[in-house]
Amino acid sequence: MNVRLIAAFFAATLISISCFSQTIQEDFKPSSLNQPGQEYPQVNSQGYARFRIFAPKADSVKVSLGLGGRGGTKLKKGDDGYWTATTEGPMDEGFHYYNVTIDGGKFNDPGAKNYYGSVRWESGIEIPAHDQDFYALKDVPHGNVQQILFPSKSTGTPRRAFVYTPPGYEKEKSKKYPVLYLQHGWGEDETAWSNQGHANLIMDNLIAEGKIKPFLIVMTYGMTNEVKFGKIREFKIDPFQAVLVDELIPYVDANFRTLTNRDNRAMAGLSMGGMETKMITLNKPDVFGYYGLLSGGVYAPDDLKDKAKPKLVFISCGSKERPDGVTKAVTDLKGAGYNAVSYVSDKTAHEFLTWRRSLHEMAPLLFK
Amino acid sequence: MNVRLIAAFFAATLISISCFSQTIQEDFKPSSLNQPGQEYPQVNSQGYARFRIFAPKADSVKVSLGLGGRGGTKLKKGDDGYWTATTEGPMDEGFHYYNVTIDGGKFNDPGAKNYYGSVRWESGIEIPAHDQDFYALKDVPHGNVQQILFPSKSTGTPRRAFVYTPPGYEKEKSKKYPVLYLQHGWGEDETAWSNQGHANLIMDNLIAEGKIKPFLIVMTYGMTNEVKFGKIREFKIDPFQAVLVDELIPYVDANFRTLTNRDNRAMAGLSMGGMETKMITLNKPDVFGYYGLLSGGVYAPDDLKDKAKPKLVFISCGSKERPDGVTKAVTDLKGAGYNAVSYVSDKTAHEFLTWRRSLHEMAPLLFK
Repeated sequence: MNVRLIAAFFAATLISISCFSQTIQEDFKPSSLNQPGQEYPQVNSQGYARFRIFAPKADSVKVSLGLGGRGGTKLKKGDDGYWTATTEGPMDEGFHYYNVTIDGGKFNDPGAKNYYGSVRWESGIEIPAHDQDFYALKDVPHGNVQQILFPSKSTGTPRRAFVYTPPGYEKEKSKKYPVLYLQHGWGEDETAWSNQGHANLIMDNLIAEGKIKPFLIVMTYGMTNEVKFGKIREFKIDPFQAVLVDELIPYVDANFRTLTNRDNRAMAGLSMGGMETKMITLNKPDVFGYYGLLSGGVYAPDDLKDKAKPKLVFISCGSKERPDGVTKAVTDLKGAGYNAVSYVSDKTAHEFLTWRRSLHEMAPLLFK
Repeated sequence: MNVRLIAAFFAATLISISCFSQTIQEDFKPSSLNQPGQEYPQVNSQGYARFRIFAPKADSVKVSLGLGGRGGTKLKKGDDGYWTATTEGPMDEGFHYYNVTIDGGKFNDPGAKNYYGSVRWESGIEIPAHDQDFYALKDVPHGNVQQILFPSKSTGTPRRAFVYTPPGYEKEKSKKYPVLYLQHGWGEDETAWSNQGHANLIMDNLIAEGKIKPFLIVMTYGMTNEVKFGKIREFKIDPFQAVLVDELIPYVDANFRTLTNRDNRAMAGLSMGGMETKMITLNKPDVFGYYGLLSGGVYAPDDLKDKAKPKLVFISCGSKERPDGVTKAVTDLKGAGYNAVSYVSDKTAHEFLTWRRSLHEMAPLLFK
């Protein structure tokens, strides 16, 4: 980090600190991701989170979330054995993973539901977003999320995937649909996009509003070969590419009513899933016609040359990530004659609200 | 508890205690329900469980499982900050819920996956059963487990259910199927039968062996009105009956290829789900033709008289529950001219191996 960056960092921190002086509104409500009947954790209208955990004989209790969603917050013990604290400032809107350190050991908050991230089932909390309507559970026709178990010779075991089928899929018995293969990030699994991503509700709502033509989404586990976070550069795509392209796609095409040509097949992924998307679409340009990288790197025009031209390249990230890299990449791609679209999610970081919004922006552009 | 029962209890305990003197085999392996990459908890070939939890500054760590699966086990702290212990004796075969008490607060084991039970997401551990083959993930054709969101006017929100569709359902486009409505127990939810129950794998294997004709299984949340464990006698069936009979069944019949008459519709449930099954089948004898109570009470001939006769009444429990009550009830029903079948699961208690086995026994008897 150079001196200018450090200065910028401190300036940003000062702006954030100035927010702390606001009065905390005492309108805390249970997070929407709490376990049934659990009152804590809570969130207020400003985005502060309040935690409350029972551990009467513990010496220290800390949650991994703090200002903005990063850092951590130490809890204080009350006479009743409950440890409580409110974050120092508002958190970013949307979904955050977190965990609780009790006397030096890492556990989950017994009040919150769990979501797979960071190679463990973590606690989850939801800070209501001003635009949460697009992924809300509404009284509209709903598609299904189907757990399938498909054969995989390359890994020697049946493997799990989830398939979103849009409303009407069961009834319109002769209609065939395009398919988006959608990957999770590092440390997550095939449950992420429907659990914390609400991919099914985003689709149901877009379809109810007439904004997209229905398509299927297929989500499977992308960490086929184990990869440690610091060693992601050593990642080899071959094992996962074999599962996806040689095993899963043929199974889906044989067992669901799909359109099986390149122009009706998309691949996208978030973070590490974007890296996988880039590798696989470049290795198999005849298999996928639409590419999406969500906080997961960029394509340069040189990556794409001398290959079947993609119908669309969609690249996105949060405004708190590296939006300049995303917009520059798309400008370059357009300059080289590609159909490319960028999207920057306002005031979000490398987290799921960025990716929910990215899916919501990308879906209407697919299969045109 | 009378004197004779107390004597029997102590006799049973002494028999159990005599098992303790056996040498513990050091062939411990990670439980099959561990989170990816987690070495603990472990299970050995005799059914002992070993726990290992990192909490270097804690004063006390205890898991809720002990001998047989009941009681609890205190962990001892090592110099490396890890707390460890092995259960005093072998646990019952099959699935057990558990939690971890750290300095007086209730958390989960960070090594294990979580399963909804006791109105919380609990840790789960699996003691390999000698007959586990019937619910194993095998290289056979697999059905899907579909998450559906169905409209519910009576509760004012779309509700979730899971629908098992057998292998071939997608391809055989004109075939219609019978349906089993299958309920979880108190403190569990609609995830229980497919997560910890392996209902889908039990069906896949039975179908692959040619032992049953394929049917659908529908699983939804049965604690529509909140009920506390001690107050289960105050439970009113009306709210859940409205969801199941007036909302879910019509939705399933409209959106899946089902046979919609009484003789092709069954209801069964475990524990509280058995109580619900009894109440609803007696209230709505024209809706269901097959009844199943798994560790969930019995029917007396008087319950059934002057109503449409069930095609089958299936009643089961574990041998460590009240098997005499189950076999007597079935004898009485047979004496009164009903087609009734009892099943007692050997050496299991009020736990999921009893219910996996019960489903496996009941499924071939349905829709004959």
